[in-house]
Amino acid sequence: METCILKQDFGFYKMYNIGADEMQERKLLLFIMDGVGDRPIPELGGKTPLEAAKTLTMDKLAQLGITGHLHTIGQGITPGSDTAHLALFGYNPYEVYTGRGPFEAAGTDVSVKPGDIAFRTNMATIKDGIILDRRAGRISEGTLEIEQALQNIRIEDIETIFKVGIDHRASLVLRGPGLSNNVTGNDPKIENKKPNPIIPTSLEAEKTARVLKQFIREASEIMASLEINQKRISKNKLPANYLLVRGAGKAPHLENFQTKYGLTAECVAGGGLYKGVASICGMKINNNHAGTGGVPTDLHSKVKAVMKSLQRSQFVFLHVKGTDNFGHDNKPLQKMEFIDEIDIAIEPFLELLPETIICITGDHSTPCVMRDHSSDPLPVLIVGEGVRPDQVTEFGERPTMRGGLGHLIGQQLIPLMLGIAGRVHKFGA
Amino acid sequence: METCILKQDFGFYKMYNIGADEMQERKLLLFIMDGVGDRPIPELGGKTPLEAAKTLTMDKLAQLGITGHLHTIGQGITPGSDTAHLALFGYNPYEVYTGRGPFEAAGTDVSVKPGDIAFRTNMATIKDGIILDRRAGRISEGTLEIEQALQNIRIEDIETIFKVGIDHRASLVLRGPGLSNNVTGNDPKIENKKPNPIIPTSLEAEKTARVLKQFIREASEIMASLEINQKRISKNKLPANYLLVRGAGKAPHLENFQTKYGLTAECVAGGGLYKGVASICGMKINNNHAGTGGVPTDLHSKVKAVMKSLQRSQFVFLHVKGTDNFGHDNKPLQKMEFIDEIDIAIEPFLELLPETIICITGDHSTPCVMRDHSSDPLPVLIVGEGVRPDQVTEFGERPTMRGGLGHLIGQQLIPLMLGIAGRVHKFGA
Repeated sequence: METCILKQDFGFYKMYNIGADEMQERKLLLFIMDGVGDRPIPELGGKTPLEAAKTLTMDKLAQLGITGHLHTIGQGITPGSDTAHLALFGYNPYEVYTGRGPFEAAGTDVSVKPGDIAFRTNMATIKDGIILDRRAGRISEGTLEIEQALQNIRIEDIETIFKVGIDHRASLVLRGPGLSNNVTGNDPKIENKKPNPIIPTSLEAEKTARVLKQFIREASEIMASLEINQKRISKNKLPANYLLVRGAGKAPHLENFQTKYGLTAECVAGGGLYKGVASICGMKINNNHAGTGGVPTDLHSKVKAVMKSLQRSQFVFLHVKGTDNFGHDNKPLQKMEFIDEIDIAIEPFLELLPETIICITGDHSTPCVMRDHSSDPLPVLIVGEGVRPDQVTEFGERPTMRGGLGHLIGQQLIPLMLGIAGRVHKFGA
Repeated sequence: METCILKQDFGFYKMYNIGADEMQERKLLLFIMDGVGDRPIPELGGKTPLEAAKTLTMDKLAQLGITGHLHTIGQGITPGSDTAHLALFGYNPYEVYTGRGPFEAAGTDVSVKPGDIAFRTNMATIKDGIILDRRAGRISEGTLEIEQALQNIRIEDIETIFKVGIDHRASLVLRGPGLSNNVTGNDPKIENKKPNPIIPTSLEAEKTARVLKQFIREASEIMASLEINQKRISKNKLPANYLLVRGAGKAPHLENFQTKYGLTAECVAGGGLYKGVASICGMKINNNHAGTGGVPTDLHSKVKAVMKSLQRSQFVFLHVKGTDNFGHDNKPLQKMEFIDEIDIAIEPFLELLPETIICITGDHSTPCVMRDHSSDPLPVLIVGEGVRPDQVTEFGERPTMRGGLGHLIGQQLIPLMLGIAGRVHKFGA
């Protein structure tokens, strides 16, 4: 039996009888589950976590909508989180990407100006020159004390701006003349190793490398003597006594999202990087929720924030991070269970139909077996008034292979949503 | 019932439980059946030769893998064999292709240097200025005598290098100052016609045309007097007394395959052109088999050679030519039967699973009814650890229309295989 018949029973089509003017008021919701794509997993009976999860809401949305496969940057390309989100927002990452640092900085509310060099930074634990923990025991309290202690450090003629984010995460911005982003970071990415040496990869980056090394030296000395670390040691917690930096980048030049699409836009995210990309694109950040950018998080409060943002803005970007974390940690069962939770949390999205054009997908796959991002495409669904529903009734990697959208790349996604919403102008006459 | 459940019964998933490090050791096998794609044929009950053939092995691979349609160069573009293989290997033929000659020359072990002009050459039969046979009765013996007789011919200040390949095929290279590839060939492509005039299509090619014409004149005179031709005539065989040249080309500049992908690579092929393209890309040529580059051939010995190559190298390209020949000759039944044979010969590939990422497709369609290449896309399958199987269970033009890969272009193929193998680096962070 063709499921498109079933779709009509849903009472969805009868709401279609509206005029073009009304359609142009349609709002857009883009929901990204970070790293949600996966590969078949034996423990899940050969299904992926998304396929195995109980996704009543997403399945209903898939049933009402049109589905397909999304290659965020392009076929066979493994995206980073930053480049993937640029592509999802419609920017060509090969043209605009200047490194991760500026997005991380923007995510901690530091605005990166032309000439600045920004870094993603971890507060870490070092002992006898060896990194014991890249995240200082995932330090979550007292980090503001560290931030305050590292203010107003000036190296040569360079101003430094250090700002903490969630847990062990922080950003560092160097501001002043003669800086370059051609420096390597000191983060070895694994523990029980020495920090990597900071090396200028071009002649004009020698000053940047020198200033950066000196800042890390001074900062680490200050951190070691802080009261918060004495307390942590006395409680058998790892002290945050070192800074690991990576992702050197200069300010990117991005066309403002609102200008690009004619849409006021808001972002609901926990993770600094995602807020940073959204913010640099020109979206407003709605921080009025209890999302953490990790697990555990408060998905319901994020969904509430989305509802609020949709009242004010024409485009809302919702980001949930946990799916990616479980992929990196090779925890397929937890990944599946977290998707169960997401599905329950987003049930209120059904009420947004059909007036809101909703798109659900991911930024990249993070297959558990790989413990890292992959180039496997993502399932994608678009639902709302104006969509031509296909015959797919389940949201997952394999069901959407036969979806009506076929294979898309990330930069096509928002134009497609705008097209469905009738919010685009003709090319030609 | 979802056929992805069926696939689980295959005992494939249970082999999935390996780590990311191991995955990165995965090897790649690309098997190209030349001109395999076809159109529905009445004598085959409206099926294509591939659809009508008994393909137990390929169907099993399709069932375990993911399938789709491949446009080697692009939608609606009819590829040559040379440009198609460049695209399959990931090169943009519009940027790198300089003519067929250099690849033919490389296939006969003549290395084409900057400044050289190379040609594909046929030893042909001419009588009273009319081409009786473009292939001199598909001459297969004694061609080395012809090659030796045509050494050390010098025209003006130009050195000539003539080298025979399989049967009537040969390559010609002109080496010296002031040459150009802007010359037409003399091959009329049909018989019972005069050779075409060799014409320079730009001013700077006048010398090349003059030298080429003189070489053909001198070579034909020498050939006519050779003992091998006297013998052929006495046995009522057509003499090889003329040279037809085509595909003038200068040395192409290709990024080395190994550098491009970080893969050591070998080629198992019979036809000179295919070995030539592979060799110019930087692959090693494994000639340790009895494949002929035509029909009949020894498919089993080629498959054995592939197994050997896979022990030494990370990427192996296997080429089988016969499917294309039967398309050019409009012999659908023989094309089907040859595919039957291929399917039996490649059964050992099943043992390579799941550790090897195997891709099977063609370089272009050669529909029998057209007797030539067409722009019809090719069925493609990719199978091996990390693949998300789709619901296609049969390898053929129509079953794979609904495959999970959708529509690909040739240049995306190796990146996709690398992505599945976990052999790629992230773009971004």
